Amino acid sequence: MGQMKFTAVQGGSIITPKGFSAGGLHCGLKKSERHDLGAIYCEVPAVAAAVYTTNLIQAAPLKVTRESLQDGRLQAVVVNSGNANACTGKQGEEDAYTMRAEAARHLGVAEQDVAVASTGVIGELLKMDCVTAGIAGLPKRLSGEASGAEDFSQAILTTDLVKKEACVSVRVNGKDVTIAGAAKGSGMIHPNMATMLAFMTTDAAIEADALQQLLRQATDVTFNMITVDGDTSTNDMLIAMASGLAGNDALHPAHPDWEAFAEGFTYVCQILAQAIARDGEGATKLVEVQVSGAVSDLSARAIAKTVIGSSLVKSAVFGADANWGRVIAAVGRAGEPVNPETVDIHIGDISVLEGSRPVAFDEDAALQYLKGDTVRITVDLHQGDGIATAWGCDLTYDYVRINAAYRT
Amino acid sequence: MGQMKFTAVQGGSIITPKGFSAGGLHCGLKKSERHDLGAIYCEVPAVAAAVYTTNLIQAAPLKVTRESLQDGRLQAVVVNSGNANACTGKQGEEDAYTMRAEAARHLGVAEQDVAVASTGVIGELLKMDCVTAGIAGLPKRLSGEASGAEDFSQAILTTDLVKKEACVSVRVNGKDVTIAGAAKGSGMIHPNMATMLAFMTTDAAIEADALQQLLRQATDVTFNMITVDGDTSTNDMLIAMASGLAGNDALHPAHPDWEAFAEGFTYVCQILAQAIARDGEGATKLVEVQVSGAVSDLSARAIAKTVIGSSLVKSAVFGADANWGRVIAAVGRAGEPVNPETVDIHIGDISVLEGSRPVAFDEDAALQYLKGDTVRITVDLHQGDGIATAWGCDLTYDYVRINAAYRT
Repeated sequence: MGQMKFTAVQGGSIITPKGFSAGGLHCGLKKSERHDLGAIYCEVPAVAAAVYTTNLIQAAPLKVTRESLQDGRLQAVVVNSGNANACTGKQGEEDAYTMRAEAARHLGVAEQDVAVASTGVIGELLKMDCVTAGIAGLPKRLSGEASGAEDFSQAILTTDLVKKEACVSVRVNGKDVTIAGAAKGSGMIHPNMATMLAFMTTDAAIEADALQQLLRQATDVTFNMITVDGDTSTNDMLIAMASGLAGNDALHPAHPDWEAFAEGFTYVCQILAQAIARDGEGATKLVEVQVSGAVSDLSARAIAKTVIGSSLVKSAVFGADANWGRVIAAVGRAGEPVNPETVDIHIGDISVLEGSRPVAFDEDAALQYLKGDTVRITVDLHQGDGIATAWGCDLTYDYVRINAAYRT
Repeated sequence: MGQMKFTAVQGGSIITPKGFSAGGLHCGLKKSERHDLGAIYCEVPAVAAAVYTTNLIQAAPLKVTRESLQDGRLQAVVVNSGNANACTGKQGEEDAYTMRAEAARHLGVAEQDVAVASTGVIGELLKMDCVTAGIAGLPKRLSGEASGAEDFSQAILTTDLVKKEACVSVRVNGKDVTIAGAAKGSGMIHPNMATMLAFMTTDAAIEADALQQLLRQATDVTFNMITVDGDTSTNDMLIAMASGLAGNDALHPAHPDWEAFAEGFTYVCQILAQAIARDGEGATKLVEVQVSGAVSDLSARAIAKTVIGSSLVKSAVFGADANWGRVIAAVGRAGEPVNPETVDIHIGDISVLEGSRPVAFDEDAALQYLKGDTVRITVDLHQGDGIATAWGCDLTYDYVRINAAYRT
């Protein structure tokens, strides 16, 4: 991103922007004692925006959240893990509405200002006695301290191994504006004009349309550029809430500090997206595929996602095998314009293919590089100016182990 | 296919149709002593047709074979395994032309009547001393007996565990016409308007255009409906050769026995396609996904291929987990019209979802069924008359093991 117009906030989280608190607890949906219910609360109604899964099969909470977001405002989000409340019919819808109503009642906000999100197994009804008892206990767990964000971040995880957080600070009208996010990912990760569960907070004043537009743009180059397994969830949801308490003039695309805000916002999305990819089910490393020289950015994105999603490429990375033949095979099947004679491929800084011809390279150096915890594959098509970056992970024995018996 | 208009020929193979012989040997491309070079020979120039990979990166032998097939005739096919001769530049093209020339010389046929195919690792030059010495030895290995077909079938395998063959007999003009095929598959299997290496022989007299048209139609509902890993090879090729020695009037779509011939031809393709799916890298079972009630056959095909290609569905089948949530999630992301309220799913004969609502089912019975060596998943969308069937395999530890270190 060249010279960055924002500053990373070490130790920052979703409660760092002014006005936000968060919390989480164990209500009984997960078998272990891990947190499985959480909430984010804003002390004022926040300008809000969201993007959702494009899967035609959508979970009940998405319907409820869409309703709440019709006026572009939210004051709270309530989330459970351990159960996706998807394919649960009329009862599932009623349960999602009950989650919203109970959260609104206990937090003292309007029902229409509460969003609901769920993640976990598909096709089982929520244990509503656990959920309602848990929601009743949430308000006293909310905190504007780091522990509140920690509890929330833990409460949204499923097969994730680590929490995912990011926070940056931007100067807007000479004031410090903070942007933060929390996310969960792990499996069924192939966002398609949407994303996994992710929640962003900012204290910026911003126009609702501008926030929605920025959320879509940032999603296209971050959350929509990751894949773990090519499967798109029924529950994907990304919600952003802006409290406005930073005191800046409301942001919109013509605002003089819009670019800085957009860069910081996109950076938070990128950090969360990379964290989801690195913590993909069974993953041992983060894989980054950079495509340049495509006929357009859209074309570059399609090619980057095809390479990052190739089971053969992912298996080779797991095995630290510099098998560029699988990379170019994926490039060629992406359905995008490719000149079969002009493709360059690098693995890390090691050139392995130039003008579509193999280059003799140091296999030992490649092996050492591929054994690292981050692997970058660069493809230059020499056809145009289109660029894109996609993130994913390797395909491992543990991915199979985790998914061979997820329900049991 | 309802009442079948053809008869399976037990023990039949590509040499069963009149006029064909085949053979194979070890020339030194594979490290083990397994066969790695083979040929099919027809005693007369045969009417021939082919379909190729749609990957834009295409291996050198495909260019040579396209040239040979310009006149719709072939008399021989020479194939090597252990090296794909893909991404090998000018030298790779020269090597493919040399393979064709040497095969033509030693078999005593015109160069333009020889097709060349290769399969194996991408990006390494063929050891041409091995190949040319091997081709010189091929004519005396050719046989019209079963051993010749066996040698050929072994010579085209890579990570395949078993050979793939099929043979049927059809009555045309009161004469027995035989149709047979041999194929290899295993990894990088996601044919896209093309297929893996497969070779069909028939002694039918048939018009060249009719054979090409039939080959495409049969491919669409057989080879193009399988997936192992979603990766499309650079070397996919399906070649059909018709000797005409059965003595029937030349077949074309208006011929009274066309339908019987087409059914038998398609059946051979289907058996080979299923065999490729069942023998997918690391696979422990064949998975069949039947979709009905889609808005069109094309839509049903897209949905069936999305389900069969889902890593999550494949892992669940490996773990014998009746995780229908992953099936409906795949249905919903296929990019095709789906009514989220009217989906039925069966696993084997066990109903697990009706009208998109979970059905209580006997988990033990489902477990027993899923432990079998063939698993059928049936999806009814209740939206139209479109139907399709796709074949694949489970995703296993062995798939990861095989592909983590393929080159080494």
